[in-house]
Amino acid sequence: MSLIVVGSIALDTVITPFKVVREVLGGSATYFSYSASYFNKVRLVGVVGEDFPKKFIDDFKDRSIDVAGLKMKKGKTFRWVGEYKYDLNIRETKKLELNVFADFSPDIPDSYKNSKYVFLGNINPSLQLNVLKKISKPKLVACDTIDCWIKNDFKKLLQIMKMVDIFFVNDSEARELSGVSNLILAARKIRSLGPKIVIIKKGEHGSMLFSDGWHFVVPAYPLENTVDPTGAGDSFAGGFMGYLSTCKRINEEEIKRALVFGTVTASYCVEDFSIYRFQTLSKEKIYSRFKELKKITHFEDI
Amino acid sequence: MSLIVVGSIALDTVITPFKVVREVLGGSATYFSYSASYFNKVRLVGVVGEDFPKKFIDDFKDRSIDVAGLKMKKGKTFRWVGEYKYDLNIRETKKLELNVFADFSPDIPDSYKNSKYVFLGNINPSLQLNVLKKISKPKLVACDTIDCWIKNDFKKLLQIMKMVDIFFVNDSEARELSGVSNLILAARKIRSLGPKIVIIKKGEHGSMLFSDGWHFVVPAYPLENTVDPTGAGDSFAGGFMGYLSTCKRINEEEIKRALVFGTVTASYCVEDFSIYRFQTLSKEKIYSRFKELKKITHFEDI
Repeated sequence: MSLIVVGSIALDTVITPFKVVREVLGGSATYFSYSASYFNKVRLVGVVGEDFPKKFIDDFKDRSIDVAGLKMKKGKTFRWVGEYKYDLNIRETKKLELNVFADFSPDIPDSYKNSKYVFLGNINPSLQLNVLKKISKPKLVACDTIDCWIKNDFKKLLQIMKMVDIFFVNDSEARELSGVSNLILAARKIRSLGPKIVIIKKGEHGSMLFSDGWHFVVPAYPLENTVDPTGAGDSFAGGFMGYLSTCKRINEEEIKRALVFGTVTASYCVEDFSIYRFQTLSKEKIYSRFKELKKITHFEDI
Repeated sequence: MSLIVVGSIALDTVITPFKVVREVLGGSATYFSYSASYFNKVRLVGVVGEDFPKKFIDDFKDRSIDVAGLKMKKGKTFRWVGEYKYDLNIRETKKLELNVFADFSPDIPDSYKNSKYVFLGNINPSLQLNVLKKISKPKLVACDTIDCWIKNDFKKLLQIMKMVDIFFVNDSEARELSGVSNLILAARKIRSLGPKIVIIKKGEHGSMLFSDGWHFVVPAYPLENTVDPTGAGDSFAGGFMGYLSTCKRINEEEIKRALVFGTVTASYCVEDFSIYRFQTLSKEKIYSRFKELKKITHFEDI
């Protein structure tokens, strides 16, 4: 079924101890779309400036990402400069230029309004609400957030949380949002605020999913070489939602598989800068890591 | 088959933000023995002072822990005072009194010398060597270490590493020992130093096992209430070795199950101070978490 995403599209400059890349394609909607595109067509909603390379738009199209909802506005594209030290888990934002993203007011093309699966990337909760209202009858709504909205726009965040089925959050944000340190208790608290399912992302330590009466844990796919963690969370959500949106029925087994597929697409994402790793990725490679994750986590009963 | 452990036996004072317990039973050999005792009889090697409560010795016996190798020496028992802040992952040693442990020279009773499964707790590598030499024909030798020996007795540590089959180490120690940040590469480096199997303990994030051509990952059992992490690593090793020492054949499947049983016994350990949680534990409860871990990590192929 149809899948729509709204989020940021950015030109990122990423500094790691090993390499620096400048003005490469980034943003939450970008990573989500690339990742989900291995499972389903994606309807992209976002804004870029006039300086946004046409090649990037062509690349979206090549991956069957619908750009009818990608608006080009007068001005410069959203830019982010981030630095990772040797511990790639810690990121520092060196510079943030919102540019055309500052007064982003998402337009939803008519062709998108019947979308059934909705992913609201980690933009301002007011914008998330704004988008959600324009979708006529969504079947499943997921959203992500960042600490910035927990700190500065908590009321609106609570409002959107009441309207979503699945809430993605990382471990430190889950603690901040719930005021609870233990992640199981934090997830319970967050579920009490609305979402039926809470997915806590723990980076290199994998993820945990909490639903009504059951939970599920997936370790990260063990990687020998992590190049750039930027976009891992959005690629994770992309794999999850991309797979789920193709399922005939949504049940516990499919949701578990979706979490594993998200784990896989995130693992590929971080093996290179920007969306470069996706450019050589195939559905077969994704499935091979899915099977590998099964092999390294399953054990037989005694 | 017979299982022997050598390590510390201590009187611990543990400070957490919620409670303080004074002079409770602790030490690596203690936690290992209690945990392993749910699977097999354990032959304990260690030293205590004259002040060591007789009740603790009776408790060992009640759990079928053989105390023929537990020496009582003139002087005071080894004492440790540790403090955890709200983040229970970070421990600070406030005080360490070696006492009778200072010149511990393990005697191995004749009745222990035919032991087949050997666990060398995280004591000085010279003592580990000393013990190992006295076991006539071990079938499987495992050892643990702490950063103190990596820093101060690296040559001896390298010597013992050449003689063991299984090496337990936590994530930060694995990085320190190998000089490599990525844990897969660190495990490979450590395996090149001798051990056939390397088990990296990651606390609340679970564990990873690396063998020849295969690896295995188990998340920690999700707990709502961690009371005291002291002894988690030794309880983990105890569950692992306890189960493995009862297997008819040692193969990949049994080793995987052993890692899951270690995960389970460690999860029980941290639910209370000292070895208190073991006092109400049963084999059935251990098996029930084993099955629960299967449920929360297994998924079906598409």
